[in-house]
Amino acid sequence: MSSFPLTPRNQVHRLPKRASYDRDQIYGILDQTFLCHAGFQVEGQVYVIPTIYGRREDTIYMHGSAASRMLKELAKGFDACVTVTLLDGMVLARSAFHHSVNYRSVVLFGQARALTDPGEKSAALEIITEQVAPGRWAEVRGPNEKELKATSVLAMPIDSASAKVRTGGPIDDEEDYTLPVWAGVVPVRMAAGTPADDGRVLPGVGLPASLSRARFL
Amino acid sequence: MSSFPLTPRNQVHRLPKRASYDRDQIYGILDQTFLCHAGFQVEGQVYVIPTIYGRREDTIYMHGSAASRMLKELAKGFDACVTVTLLDGMVLARSAFHHSVNYRSVVLFGQARALTDPGEKSAALEIITEQVAPGRWAEVRGPNEKELKATSVLAMPIDSASAKVRTGGPIDDEEDYTLPVWAGVVPVRMAAGTPADDGRVLPGVGLPASLSRARFL
Repeated sequence: MSSFPLTPRNQVHRLPKRASYDRDQIYGILDQTFLCHAGFQVEGQVYVIPTIYGRREDTIYMHGSAASRMLKELAKGFDACVTVTLLDGMVLARSAFHHSVNYRSVVLFGQARALTDPGEKSAALEIITEQVAPGRWAEVRGPNEKELKATSVLAMPIDSASAKVRTGGPIDDEEDYTLPVWAGVVPVRMAAGTPADDGRVLPGVGLPASLSRARFL
Repeated sequence: MSSFPLTPRNQVHRLPKRASYDRDQIYGILDQTFLCHAGFQVEGQVYVIPTIYGRREDTIYMHGSAASRMLKELAKGFDACVTVTLLDGMVLARSAFHHSVNYRSVVLFGQARALTDPGEKSAALEIITEQVAPGRWAEVRGPNEKELKATSVLAMPIDSASAKVRTGGPIDDEEDYTLPVWAGVVPVRMAAGTPADDGRVLPGVGLPASLSRARFL
């Protein structure tokens, strides 16, 4: 199935022309980054917490300390919401009203469950690590039994999702084009700086191959 | 008061050494960007939606279409959560377990209310515009009556807040420092590209002064 069914939960209400329910487009956005914002509630109070994730097929994986409140709450299996946003540009118009931003965002819905099997947990941690820097998992020491126990890992099958995308320049009111105001787009993106080793890298060990494949590089 | 009181709502549970309740630090993070993720719920389903904001003193302002469901829900005055995250670096360790990211994040709590007075709405829209590009408001045509009516503007006094910050390099297990694995930090940040005008800028109109003060530039 190439699209997520349109339901009250994933329907984009505002500016539906910007919306997409296409699985390939949604997963394409998810695979551009590794930072999401997960929403959950505790006794009626909503919390929004940033965390990293990995995607494989129709599942999102998140992890953290075994003591994490966020993961404990998400693992209770209520309908969670996980949102990923890529900021692509500032859109400057001739009027304040028509200023905007270019972006690609995805909103995911599903019920998360905690993984308990050590092999399943390790496989999910590999997916998260590979989301950040493809190839990194094979370069480093994998998790031991103690580390796996200290780590909570959640799997959230993506039940429902939508994407919302704005591209292009400002659209001003026709009469405003006579104003002597600069209007256009300033592109923005995540950019990586120069890698700095931690001062204890062994002689002869160079930058890892995974870095050349890392998101943002 | 220089710090937000520590309460069950804003208490950072995981890695409390990374937490801060200091107002200056929290506002310093808020003033580095203009993108937040707002959390609200509709009939038990949590939604996390990206939007832009502006801060002045102890209040966050958000805006959108008068038809926005997010703004309507937030304006109901329940306890909302608004989160801002700056990603600062990828932290590569010698073991999968000790990989991390450097970041600064802020979680804000408060009750939002919709502004109704046109003057108050316009002032809030100025704060949001100035958050994106300081000085832009004076360069452009301000909102007219019709535009103000079409725009919902929320004010959320910041009742409670916390910041969480990770900096520095990886911290590996002592025995892993003998591994021939590169470890260190790859800094990342939002970066702006070359501004592109929309093809209808009047002759002689150059790049605006506000752009040189814009976030990410």
